[in-house]
Amino acid sequence: MIRMIMHGCNGAMGQVVSQIAAEETNITIVAGIDPNDTRQNPYPVFPSLEACREEADVIVDFTSSKAVDSLLDYSVKKKIPVVVCTTGLSDDQIKKLEDASRHVAVLRSANMSLGVNLLMKLVKEATQVLAAAGFDIEILEKHHNKKLDSPSGTALALADSINEAMDQEYHYVYDRSQVRKARDKKEIGIQSVRGGTIVGEHDVIFAGTDEIITFHHTAYSKAIFAKGAVSAAKFLAGKAPGLYSMKDVIKS
Amino acid sequence: MIRMIMHGCNGAMGQVVSQIAAEETNITIVAGIDPNDTRQNPYPVFPSLEACREEADVIVDFTSSKAVDSLLDYSVKKKIPVVVCTTGLSDDQIKKLEDASRHVAVLRSANMSLGVNLLMKLVKEATQVLAAAGFDIEILEKHHNKKLDSPSGTALALADSINEAMDQEYHYVYDRSQVRKARDKKEIGIQSVRGGTIVGEHDVIFAGTDEIITFHHTAYSKAIFAKGAVSAAKFLAGKAPGLYSMKDVIKS
Amino acid sequence: MIRMIMHGCNGAMGQVVSQIAAEETNITIVAGIDPNDTRQNPYPVFPSLEACREEADVIVDFTSSKAVDSLLDYSVKKKIPVVVCTTGLSDDQIKKLEDASRHVAVLRSANMSLGVNLLMKLVKEATQVLAAAGFDIEILEKHHNKKLDSPSGTALALADSINEAMDQEYHYVYDRSQVRKARDKKEIGIQSVRGGTIVGEHDVIFAGTDEIITFHHTAYSKAIFAKGAVSAAKFLAGKAPGLYSMKDVIKS
Amino acid sequence: MIRMIMHGCNGAMGQVVSQIAAEETNITIVAGIDPNDTRQNPYPVFPSLEACREEADVIVDFTSSKAVDSLLDYSVKKKIPVVVCTTGLSDDQIKKLEDASRHVAVLRSANMSLGVNLLMKLVKEATQVLAAAGFDIEILEKHHNKKLDSPSGTALALADSINEAMDQEYHYVYDRSQVRKARDKKEIGIQSVRGGTIVGEHDVIFAGTDEIITFHHTAYSKAIFAKGAVSAAKFLAGKAPGLYSMKDVIKS
Repeated sequence: MIRMIMHGCNGAMGQVVSQIAAEETNITIVAGIDPNDTRQNPYPVFPSLEACREEADVIVDFTSSKAVDSLLDYSVKKKIPVVVCTTGLSDDQIKKLEDASRHVAVLRSANMSLGVNLLMKLVKEATQVLAAAGFDIEILEKHHNKKLDSPSGTALALADSINEAMDQEYHYVYDRSQVRKARDKKEIGIQSVRGGTIVGEHDVIFAGTDEIITFHHTAYSKAIFAKGAVSAAKFLAGKAPGLYSMKDVIKS
Repeated sequence: MIRMIMHGCNGAMGQVVSQIAAEETNITIVAGIDPNDTRQNPYPVFPSLEACREEADVIVDFTSSKAVDSLLDYSVKKKIPVVVCTTGLSDDQIKKLEDASRHVAVLRSANMSLGVNLLMKLVKEATQVLAAAGFDIEILEKHHNKKLDSPSGTALALADSINEAMDQEYHYVYDRSQVRKARDKKEIGIQSVRGGTIVGEHDVIFAGTDEIITFHHTAYSKAIFAKGAVSAAKFLAGKAPGLYSMKDVIKS
Repeated sequence: MIRMIMHGCNGAMGQVVSQIAAEETNITIVAGIDPNDTRQNPYPVFPSLEACREEADVIVDFTSSKAVDSLLDYSVKKKIPVVVCTTGLSDDQIKKLEDASRHVAVLRSANMSLGVNLLMKLVKEATQVLAAAGFDIEILEKHHNKKLDSPSGTALALADSINEAMDQEYHYVYDRSQVRKARDKKEIGIQSVRGGTIVGEHDVIFAGTDEIITFHHTAYSKAIFAKGAVSAAKFLAGKAPGLYSMKDVIKS
Repeated sequence: MIRMIMHGCNGAMGQVVSQIAAEETNITIVAGIDPNDTRQNPYPVFPSLEACREEADVIVDFTSSKAVDSLLDYSVKKKIPVVVCTTGLSDDQIKKLEDASRHVAVLRSANMSLGVNLLMKLVKEATQVLAAAGFDIEILEKHHNKKLDSPSGTALALADSINEAMDQEYHYVYDRSQVRKARDKKEIGIQSVRGGTIVGEHDVIFAGTDEIITFHHTAYSKAIFAKGAVSAAKFLAGKAPGLYSMKDVIKS
């Protein structure tokens, strides 16, 4: 049985992860860490990692960027692998995270969903075959009407994954209404639809001569990110020091 | 049996219309008009309408804008209803067309496909119900990589149809990548995907709270515009003078 | 302000309706009815309608079929319009409901979602135009892997709506793998996909020559049924006796 | 420049292949074989392979099964690699084809489209990751209303590809309307939609908890099979004896 610490257990995502972990048979949360102990949890909650008195095999982190520095220090000191799901890290923090990964196993990904990470891998493979065959590549994403940024980080990560397969040959185009010209072979159009409460949809479209292949991903709730985090925790427990990502979880 | 003249019979669309008309039982092409008599047709071809010696009940026109003036003159003089499928008419020509419609039945539409015209009607009805219920409306269109303009004329016609239902309250948005803000309630996002040989796809998306309704149209070939033209011809033969559109064909 | 009684307020759907109603400005829940008063509600809860001491303009019911008889009796006696969302009524109960509607406004629908009911209406209109133009009609539905019945009740209601437009000419086909023959013009194929936690998706596909029109509905959660119930309540308050459905709500 | 013989050059598919090959720069058709020399071709046409006086590096075959035996004999005798696109071979012919592949390079596939063959490969990879994560797998195909068989051969090939990844654990289900029960974890539902002139669409759906991944393929015309045949010819010229398939073309 893998013993896990939930760092940020009383946040929205911390609660969802706790629920997902409770349904798994070979992993158990032995402690939660949160300054606010307002929720009922089936495990003891400590105000900080330093205050935690439970032994553990892996830490899952869903907090805010300011809590990440002390998390990495603790992880290195105690040699406990850590899954960092918190986003918006500074360049200094990413450097610190890489340093930490020389001493302990650290996993971090732009998107924690198993499905999206699989898609990134398959889309890259598809590009290698289809770009050579003259297919045009386009990305389409749909999100709720409250989302501030566009395109989504996941759409950009998908585009980057395609571009990596093609030696960075492509450039991204977000608007075609201002010019009157045919599509350039080396462009990836990225379009954003916004409306209602759409959790998140992504299409990667390969359009060739008389043939279209589309890779489509729909998220129905944020539980999929929690599920990915738990899979990552199970993968990371017992691993040698190093920097891992969801791609390694998929390969395993 | 309705007797039809195919104006521009040896152009690409004229040939497709001829083929579609030949499969119909209650309409027959009695003459084609084309300066180039290079193709084999099962009907006599004349270099101009003036040279045509056949009686007819309706004319279908798929030529270029410069042939439209003399077409309208002939149609008025002979009192033969005319379906004008040629696009890119000047303001003067549209004025002339309206004048002509006081003397003879004239039909003209932005898009000759039965499906697209039906969609325009239903989308308008849907807007009346769903906009009031707080749904956001977005339009997505996909076309081949040679298309110069974007968004497509049909996407704009769909947006106009929605806007008409809402007393012109909406504005159109083509690019969201340059601003960081939540969607405005009064916007219709119109996104354009370009790739391969896609003939034409249109989605009108109504996104509400936990519910999405999408109206989708796919064209597999330009034959659908020819088919619409023949339906329009059958509708228009024998009609009183006036300006008609594909909406009237659908209602009938 | 419309005063509403929530019949079955502590059930899963009763709670969702309460939440939706709380977000509306022109309707308020003045009382809940539930034998189990285990949940915290912002309104008084009574064990039965007879015990309720609040005045109301409309009752919304999400209980079980065995609670419907006394509900109808109460509604008729007190002349309070009632929205019956409970499903699985017996033939006797449907008869009783029709009798009640002679004395008080009663609303009942197979599916309470605004979107699905709008779709039913539009699909019927589309059929009138497209069936005559030779389009084939197919229905596709997707639901979670726990669903016992197939096709879904909503898929059948959509098919019935199409069939009604065509004087019951069509028959339904669920399996094509056992015969080797071309599609019959008078069939509606109804296909069911089952997997994961899909809440509910429905496609009505009109496939013609080189042209496809698809009406698509996706439900992301059961909140859409609650939302439909609240819209129905607002519509029904103050209405004359009679049997109403969600179609009337859409038309209004 | 690769020199190609088009076996069955005056059939519908032979003509499409000729057109596709003419657009390529590093392959040229040096001879066509067809008993009926009714069409105009930019290369000499011979009534049989034996009568052909041109040297070649590869043969592409789109004929009928009865022409395949002499084709294989010729290919072995002359040591010219052969791409067999003809379907409906007998067991004896498949045996003969395997025997031939010991002496010359032979390529044969259920579906010649590059996109469909890529899909088969990616779907297999996706299954290895997603089946373990509890995703349900479903297949949906759409074809025109004249198609006699269902499900399509390509849908079955996709299902077989998935099943191969899972040690043949799955069984296929074509109809769910006759039973009232929840989906079995080990089933692949295969659904067929028929209508209009749909050339061919295939969806492989992986539905998990709150997450759906769909792989979608649309064919707009049969040109994609011709294109695959030409790619296969370019791949096969100069190859060592052996039995190849489109999967090898994709890998290269």
